Amino acid sequence: MASDIMPNWLIKRADLSPERVALITEEATWTFNELHKLSVSAANKLSALGVKHGDHVAVLIGNRKEFLFLLHGLEYIGAVAVLLNTKLTSHEISWQLENSESRLLVFDDVFLEKLENAPKAVKQLSLAEFINAEEGKATIRFEYDLNEVHTIIYTSGTTGNPKGVMLSYGNHWWNAVSSSLNLGLHMDDCWLCVTPLFHVSGLSILMKSVFYGMPIYLVEKFDPAKVNMAIENYHVTHISVVSQMLVRLVADLGERVYPKSFRCALLGGGPAPKPLLEICKEKGIPVYQSYGMTETSSQIATLSTEYMLSKLGSAGKSLFPAQLRIEKDGKEQSANEAGEIVVKGPVVTKGYWKNEEATEKSIVNAWLYTGDIGYLDEDGFLYVLDRRNDLIISGGENIYPAEIEAVILSHSAIEEAGVVGQSDEKWGQVPIAFVKTWDGEMVTKEEILSLCKERLAKYKVPVDVIFVEDGLPRNASNKLMRKELRKLLD
Amino acid sequence: MASDIMPNWLIKRADLSPERVALITEEATWTFNELHKLSVSAANKLSALGVKHGDHVAVLIGNRKEFLFLLHGLEYIGAVAVLLNTKLTSHEISWQLENSESRLLVFDDVFLEKLENAPKAVKQLSLAEFINAEEGKATIRFEYDLNEVHTIIYTSGTTGNPKGVMLSYGNHWWNAVSSSLNLGLHMDDCWLCVTPLFHVSGLSILMKSVFYGMPIYLVEKFDPAKVNMAIENYHVTHISVVSQMLVRLVADLGERVYPKSFRCALLGGGPAPKPLLEICKEKGIPVYQSYGMTETSSQIATLSTEYMLSKLGSAGKSLFPAQLRIEKDGKEQSANEAGEIVVKGPVVTKGYWKNEEATEKSIVNAWLYTGDIGYLDEDGFLYVLDRRNDLIISGGENIYPAEIEAVILSHSAIEEAGVVGQSDEKWGQVPIAFVKTWDGEMVTKEEILSLCKERLAKYKVPVDVIFVEDGLPRNASNKLMRKELRKLLD
Repeated sequence: MASDIMPNWLIKRADLSPERVALITEEATWTFNELHKLSVSAANKLSALGVKHGDHVAVLIGNRKEFLFLLHGLEYIGAVAVLLNTKLTSHEISWQLENSESRLLVFDDVFLEKLENAPKAVKQLSLAEFINAEEGKATIRFEYDLNEVHTIIYTSGTTGNPKGVMLSYGNHWWNAVSSSLNLGLHMDDCWLCVTPLFHVSGLSILMKSVFYGMPIYLVEKFDPAKVNMAIENYHVTHISVVSQMLVRLVADLGERVYPKSFRCALLGGGPAPKPLLEICKEKGIPVYQSYGMTETSSQIATLSTEYMLSKLGSAGKSLFPAQLRIEKDGKEQSANEAGEIVVKGPVVTKGYWKNEEATEKSIVNAWLYTGDIGYLDEDGFLYVLDRRNDLIISGGENIYPAEIEAVILSHSAIEEAGVVGQSDEKWGQVPIAFVKTWDGEMVTKEEILSLCKERLAKYKVPVDVIFVEDGLPRNASNKLMRKELRKLLD
Repeated sequence: MASDIMPNWLIKRADLSPERVALITEEATWTFNELHKLSVSAANKLSALGVKHGDHVAVLIGNRKEFLFLLHGLEYIGAVAVLLNTKLTSHEISWQLENSESRLLVFDDVFLEKLENAPKAVKQLSLAEFINAEEGKATIRFEYDLNEVHTIIYTSGTTGNPKGVMLSYGNHWWNAVSSSLNLGLHMDDCWLCVTPLFHVSGLSILMKSVFYGMPIYLVEKFDPAKVNMAIENYHVTHISVVSQMLVRLVADLGERVYPKSFRCALLGGGPAPKPLLEICKEKGIPVYQSYGMTETSSQIATLSTEYMLSKLGSAGKSLFPAQLRIEKDGKEQSANEAGEIVVKGPVVTKGYWKNEEATEKSIVNAWLYTGDIGYLDEDGFLYVLDRRNDLIISGGENIYPAEIEAVILSHSAIEEAGVVGQSDEKWGQVPIAFVKTWDGEMVTKEEILSLCKERLAKYKVPVDVIFVEDGLPRNASNKLMRKELRKLLD
């Protein structure tokens, strides 16, 4: 259909606003016109390497400028970008390369050792090689079809193999538009990107940059002092964070406050502990709690400005083009009744790559069954409780780890907390807590347990508290990996 | 396709921001929640009158609040709104009612006398009757399909019968999104609507209001003093105007300046005279010259902020999702070569109601042949010269009336100018000018002609100047109707 056809995004942007800044790093800045030229160059190199429309090309690169050139170069040719998580093990990388049927892998030289088991059929090219590669003459596409697959990103379930989420050009487009209708769009917006570009969180910032004509301030590695410096000195207006990052930003900020121009900390990656949100409220930090996942091209629900304070702790409502409901046993739940979060809308993936079974299980009549547990309050605001897979069932009662973690995190000595279920003969499962204190802080197991007893029903109080010195296991987006915690109990 | 399905727009908006102001008139204000309830009531009345999904319902109402309730009520049921121009004659109204196969007509009581010849098959209901009508129980739609027809608006060509432009839900949606990516979107935006709601110019404001969660300041009749008062006192940030309106706003403004919060005068309805744009530039009025038509759901090209001064007089580039080129004899023209403006994108109509022939003539491979003449400069910026049908061909030379009008309008005594071609034995056609002076101002024919001689090639200088006391013929959007001027020469 004609309405599914758009002009080549970056070419259009470079035509509309060639001199606007597209990218800022610690090294330098690039305008949209420069970004376009570097993307043409990338496309020409890919073409010389034999990459064609429809080919799958794997990318194993962190938050470096070359990620952008390569990604847009792939768009120009119409190749699908398979974005590999740089924290994956060599075994996992090999599996994803194989499963995705990638023809080529472009990798940052620092990850070379992860490629020892890589399938022979996949041509490999280090970034150093790619930068110096010969340019061919790519057939640049002047139009994009919103139905085409743009990206494949693997998500790991708690069991089984990872699933390759196919995100279309349209998924990314609608995500950016949905977000702008909620957050607004100012001529001087600048979004700091420190979440990984190979995840939808970072990727969606990259996309928004092109649609909005907005600069990305790209940061390679999360360092609270550096990020705060950028917000305070480089007119950063937006940042995407998970709660663990926000905790560290707030700690580093100390008594200082953010400038007025800083208008959005988009908070994703799971339910946020309420004490953190309350501190942000006190300090006037504009936190927009959101809900989303790879399968929804990042946020599909976000708390809007006018309810930021009155609905603290909620992830808001589904964005303008989207729908959301809570289901249990196939029935829609009433207000305040927990159930599975089910969503629909043009940001929802069409399915998993070569995995019809998983697709059919997850997407029914265009509704995506997220596997997350939550409820809507009487005004229809979403409260995310937890991943269904992280749910602890103890003596028939549902226990949401996030609730217990929030209580523990309210103690000023605690930097991180993670709760998982331990097998128990009597109750089936019982909760157990892992904690890390802030450097130099001390707290006893008894103190933590007495705080829990004060605030939680008896069956929710952890049976034990385990202190972890090096911090809890987190993935590349800094999301807590409870799966890894559970392994510590085996 | 799933990505073509959206939740019911106004219900979604009323859910997301029930307490935000949706509508401001001289009488009162309405929130989105109130607007929703009044629209449900309208839907229930329509249902009691037998209106069903897919029915055509004609609307003959000016810029009154009831227009909004009715329009959204029709959306709720899924009926197509046939928007009638209130300046039409009784004969024209009858023809459009008949051609559109409308089942019902809702009309403002003041237009009763225009309905004497209306086809009997069309049930009529005055607004007074509608307001007091009984409510049934409408089946409210909770989802909209972007491919469905939302509106039919007739456009008059210079010859033949009017054509009913079918605008889909998607056309309106993409229009609003395209505009926001260019103009930005602020939480405190408020768009003054004084262009008719039955034209795409006004209608697109009504649509944006729902998508953006933004109030409309609705004005029934254009009065420069009242509009300026609203801009200066009611935090109006945007207004859509044609150049004749802007001329009068500037005249009324006098030595005053607009508040900083006023950030956009979206100028459409044909090429604007450069002197007017220069005055606005001097006075710091943020004029966004745009190009569009009913067939493109309003603007499809608009000059962006950063080029507002350097490209004065241009209508900019096609908006992000759209494409535009200049064609002559089936070939794309080079820079600075005039030809027909041809456009493509998701705001383009799927065609004319029951007029396959016109549709096939206008839309070829998803490209719309606009019938307008223009060129792109060396940087790709669009300059609209004129309607192809208004082109004067004199001794083989193309003469664009708008160019001559702009010269005449640069004279401080002239309020309005219109130039058309007069048959001429020797040259085929020669230009002739109609002018209206500002009240109390005097100017002679000789003065005007000597101004033209000074600024224009000899063949472009009008052979005569005709003074018109009551102003030039304009349609409901205040666009100059050169067709009517030509009739004066017959």
